[in-house]
Amino acid sequence: MIKTDILIIGAGPTGLFTVFEAGLLKLKCHLIDALPQPGGQCSEIYPKKPIYDIPAYPEILAGDLTEKLLEQGKQFEPGFTLGERAETIEKQDDGTFIVTTNKGTKHHAPVVAIAGGLGSFEPRKPKIHNIHLYEDKGVEYMIKDPEIYRDKKVVIAGGGDSALDWSIFLTDVAKEVTLIHRRNEFRGALDSVEKVQELKNQGKINLITPAEVVGILGEDHVTGVVVEQVQQIKKEFEIECDHFVPLFGLSPKLGPIADWGLEIEKNAIKVNNALDYQTNIPGIFAIGDVNTYPGKLKLILCGFHEATLMCQAAYQIINPGKRYVLKYTTVSGIDGFDGSRKEAPKAVVKAIE
Amino acid sequence: MIKTDILIIGAGPTGLFTVFEAGLLKLKCHLIDALPQPGGQCSEIYPKKPIYDIPAYPEILAGDLTEKLLEQGKQFEPGFTLGERAETIEKQDDGTFIVTTNKGTKHHAPVVAIAGGLGSFEPRKPKIHNIHLYEDKGVEYMIKDPEIYRDKKVVIAGGGDSALDWSIFLTDVAKEVTLIHRRNEFRGALDSVEKVQELKNQGKINLITPAEVVGILGEDHVTGVVVEQVQQIKKEFEIECDHFVPLFGLSPKLGPIADWGLEIEKNAIKVNNALDYQTNIPGIFAIGDVNTYPGKLKLILCGFHEATLMCQAAYQIINPGKRYVLKYTTVSGIDGFDGSRKEAPKAVVKAIE
Repeated sequence: MIKTDILIIGAGPTGLFTVFEAGLLKLKCHLIDALPQPGGQCSEIYPKKPIYDIPAYPEILAGDLTEKLLEQGKQFEPGFTLGERAETIEKQDDGTFIVTTNKGTKHHAPVVAIAGGLGSFEPRKPKIHNIHLYEDKGVEYMIKDPEIYRDKKVVIAGGGDSALDWSIFLTDVAKEVTLIHRRNEFRGALDSVEKVQELKNQGKINLITPAEVVGILGEDHVTGVVVEQVQQIKKEFEIECDHFVPLFGLSPKLGPIADWGLEIEKNAIKVNNALDYQTNIPGIFAIGDVNTYPGKLKLILCGFHEATLMCQAAYQIINPGKRYVLKYTTVSGIDGFDGSRKEAPKAVVKAIE
Repeated sequence: MIKTDILIIGAGPTGLFTVFEAGLLKLKCHLIDALPQPGGQCSEIYPKKPIYDIPAYPEILAGDLTEKLLEQGKQFEPGFTLGERAETIEKQDDGTFIVTTNKGTKHHAPVVAIAGGLGSFEPRKPKIHNIHLYEDKGVEYMIKDPEIYRDKKVVIAGGGDSALDWSIFLTDVAKEVTLIHRRNEFRGALDSVEKVQELKNQGKINLITPAEVVGILGEDHVTGVVVEQVQQIKKEFEIECDHFVPLFGLSPKLGPIADWGLEIEKNAIKVNNALDYQTNIPGIFAIGDVNTYPGKLKLILCGFHEATLMCQAAYQIINPGKRYVLKYTTVSGIDGFDGSRKEAPKAVVKAIE
């Protein structure tokens, strides 16, 4: 059982900044995210895209934003349960919560902060009737650990950035990379498209277009796929492979959180914005894009503010009756849980003679 | 008469970020500040101090924060009335406002956003009975334009960073710099204290400690000061000079805004935090450290959020009945009022053959 002060569902920018603000209040955080790495959409969907409305960043790449937030919080030593989706929540008699993931990992905390963004990102799956039988047996909808493809034969399907970038990456890892797309045209960053063209010309990527994977072969594990190619005439053939990785994009779903007894409005969780972004269940807060209230804007900078006010309320729940006096980091510095200390250079008091 | 969409009182971080958020909604801003430069406290009081709690900045100097915010907003071409204090506000029959400064500059806008921080920074004045007679006649409590001291004899009083840094700076500008402090010890950055020591040794700064200026000489303009020095015995003497600049620090006062008919609580302006940070007077908003509401935290990041939500309400006032659909900067890019355009590199759609 993982124990923490604030259990954060969602490791996107809002969840990551919560670690920092909670740390200033000496509260420890643990984050659960269905994606294999922190950063939420910023890391998974558009790491190389610039964001222009993060305050005091005229421009920052979404991936760099994630890095900065991780760096800002790291002295408060957050825990992570990644690649697992928060599935159930049980309120204990003492008012604390136990949250269990789809893989059975249990987390125990007095405060739960849902920073789930648009929901957990679920892959769009190809319409192959028996594909579910091969999940985690050679079919992966998301690449969590590229090492599992080392010296294997991999078939990737898709026509966007993910399919392009992973095809490029895996040419250095896998024994054989095949990229299949239902059109001849790919949609992505120009340099990615050009790189795939180059690797195809060098024979390092087998490109099959316009084509679709229509069947999967294998008993206990993928051993190949059935491909249907339509050029002048339709033809069907088999390709031997160890892995089939359809990268058709992710689509956010509120998911199991929708069944936690929280008040939901338009796919978002209603919170008390007049005070502390608490939901209808005391002890459960919702911050960032996942919440809604009058005038709500789904902007990262709003999540930062909501997280900060929420942490004050969490402090009261965890330290009942104790008064917290706000200290400015510029004045008081920061004491990390790892023993580090940051502080402004002190003024000297010194005679001039 | 200066006309704008949103008139912002206070050019600190919250006011500066408002320019950017308003710009996204195609609203133009003009800022009034009593200080001679934008940035508020961050520029005037602690430009070289690190701030640790700006989201995604593990550390940023307050002066750099100001620079970044100015850069982020500059394509929306904000106007500035600096070195003047907003003094009176008059609501017009059409619901718009005219705000007049202490120097008589008039501003006209449908929306007023008070981003006044802790108030306008008023200098602490030395207790010299007739000093008010010399204000702007050789006595300055703040250095707005160092050029007025070129080839002049200047007496600076004070023992902190301002007194040290301006003494150093003016040795290159003024004919003669005298620094007077009531103690032998100065309090400031080590390198500033050491630099003053060095300039004193070189004869470029006349240092008189422990001493106080107790009188001012001159008819229409300062011609000298009376200094009282207490070592073994007390002695009084005169120094010839053109300017006397006491730098005893600034202390924030809500000032004339307190008389604008706004609901005030504990020196801050009450706002509706459940919606748009509007005050009790429709069309006047208060954002950042100057406002108060249940759970309020006086943090820069909260000001950013408040400014952003406020701009949406301002849009409704300025464009009644028009619906604004939030666009993400990452998706839509940014069109500056100066004709500039920022946008994410577009994906290409390109065949691989």
